[in-house]
Amino acid sequence: MPPSAFLRPNLPSVIAALAGGVGAAKFLAGLVRSEPPREITAIVNVADDQEFHGLYVCPDIDSVTYTLGGVNNTKLGWGRESETFRTIDELGRFGVANWFRLGDLDLATHIFRTDQLRKGRTLAEVTNHITRSFEIEATLIPATNDRITTVITAAAANGEPHDLAMQEWFVRDRCEPIVRAVHFEGADGASPAPGVLAALADAEIIVICPSNPVISIGPLLAIPGIKDLLADRRDRVVAISPIVAGAPVKGPADLLMRPLGIEVSCFGVAEQYREFCSTVVFDIVDQDQAERIEAVGVRCVSADTMMTSPDVAAKLAGIVVGAMR
Amino acid sequence: MPPSAFLRPNLPSVIAALAGGVGAAKFLAGLVRSEPPREITAIVNVADDQEFHGLYVCPDIDSVTYTLGGVNNTKLGWGRESETFRTIDELGRFGVANWFRLGDLDLATHIFRTDQLRKGRTLAEVTNHITRSFEIEATLIPATNDRITTVITAAAANGEPHDLAMQEWFVRDRCEPIVRAVHFEGADGASPAPGVLAALADAEIIVICPSNPVISIGPLLAIPGIKDLLADRRDRVVAISPIVAGAPVKGPADLLMRPLGIEVSCFGVAEQYREFCSTVVFDIVDQDQAERIEAVGVRCVSADTMMTSPDVAAKLAGIVVGAMR
Repeated sequence: MPPSAFLRPNLPSVIAALAGGVGAAKFLAGLVRSEPPREITAIVNVADDQEFHGLYVCPDIDSVTYTLGGVNNTKLGWGRESETFRTIDELGRFGVANWFRLGDLDLATHIFRTDQLRKGRTLAEVTNHITRSFEIEATLIPATNDRITTVITAAAANGEPHDLAMQEWFVRDRCEPIVRAVHFEGADGASPAPGVLAALADAEIIVICPSNPVISIGPLLAIPGIKDLLADRRDRVVAISPIVAGAPVKGPADLLMRPLGIEVSCFGVAEQYREFCSTVVFDIVDQDQAERIEAVGVRCVSADTMMTSPDVAAKLAGIVVGAMR
Repeated sequence: MPPSAFLRPNLPSVIAALAGGVGAAKFLAGLVRSEPPREITAIVNVADDQEFHGLYVCPDIDSVTYTLGGVNNTKLGWGRESETFRTIDELGRFGVANWFRLGDLDLATHIFRTDQLRKGRTLAEVTNHITRSFEIEATLIPATNDRITTVITAAAANGEPHDLAMQEWFVRDRCEPIVRAVHFEGADGASPAPGVLAALADAEIIVICPSNPVISIGPLLAIPGIKDLLADRRDRVVAISPIVAGAPVKGPADLLMRPLGIEVSCFGVAEQYREFCSTVVFDIVDQDQAERIEAVGVRCVSADTMMTSPDVAAKLAGIVVGAMR
């Protein structure tokens, strides 16, 4: 089906979501079951984007796209369902590093995106084309069309600190180097992509998805304009804690939060977001944190946040939206 | 195995071959069985090269590489054996033309080459890396590191002539538009790749492979310096006719030769090459053409040129080399 079949006038953003990768994708899959998809705008982290073999890969945008498109690989937890790895395996023949496992179906996305970017389209334009091709009715916007990059300064047990790209630390080095610092190269000079500030300004509800606060939500907040706008609309902002019972549901958030002085708990998340977020939804098992969180001025809502199925995610989304109406 | 394992001092070129795609690949597969591979330098046409989806594809270099590497698809007659087409099929989702069937294994070559070219390596350097990765001992050199492009001016039965890239005419339009003219864009200003003129100057024997005279050998001859050097060494130059019994063994040579006034016969090939080629090897079925060919000053050798197996090709190669020693 040609992408033009999905072109439509922009609808007002009723719900704007700040999104990282897998956790956000699961929540958004619930949200589109709970609320009209065309009223949802997801603003997606791009600071993990990296070129592999000259192809421009956007891990978070693709996680959200594949999940909302219903073609995500639930067994692997990343990439496309029914995936094969013929091309990436064959690239090993040429002696290049192929630890980042780009699947054959997934490669079509990266090849298309890279070609379109080289032809002068913006990342936002290409993302729109791709999401329409997966018949996604919600709107996905990359946080920025500019290049921003998460740089992790890390060190082995007794080693010298060195800078790593996110995927190098996370995938290649399996989160083993100890994190000393994180910064977002290019963020200072980046501008929000067209539609980002409007979606945040117009939204009835702004959701911070259950994503890594440091490297998924952090880069979004580092783009000038976004954090200030959230602070202005603090009473409309709700976050879902990605930390349950003192540990991340998935991913390495603890290995990033702890060294940066953020408590690995839903309280730590609330404290981190409190300037611009009025409400935190945490898991029912963390009820004992409610008092601490409210003491720093953040309202608490508890729910089942373990999104073991789209139905559970939809129920969670309903609670999140209900709490803000 | 790392490509460096194949690095070796350049040996003097004993046999230099001008090569197109499939016909040349078959002949060269015979030649490396008949003569020491390290003494063979193939100079390969690049005028069919084209970008697809931003990936730089070299059909002739890859045909020769895959055949000499023993990984060519003998059933399809092009591409890699045991090939799949997952990525190219998936690209169709985005509404882009995917008639040029790049396989998943084949894509690894194009992705690697494109990335290396963008990083500043020359096509000759990348070709050397790729052929070493396929453990090919013969040397393959692209005719030029510059961009030259075959442009076919063609027209439907009663249509206006229009310009087509080679693969558009050959693959997409299935050779249906009638050829009016052929030219090689960029050839005038192109330089032979490093090593091309030296290989031709030093070779004991220069073989013009059984390739399409118009669009495979033609572009090589259009690069300044090559044809003149061949003419200087005319007594060392031997061509194998790709035309047998008045028809091409494979491919569309007749549809290109006839409109350009070249007789579709081994005589037509000999006449086309006579200025710079002393000897033509034609198929035994064309014995009746010997007198005509010798009358235009070209020596004749007949052989079984139907390369139905590498053994037949090796025998043909032995006859070609033997005729020049």
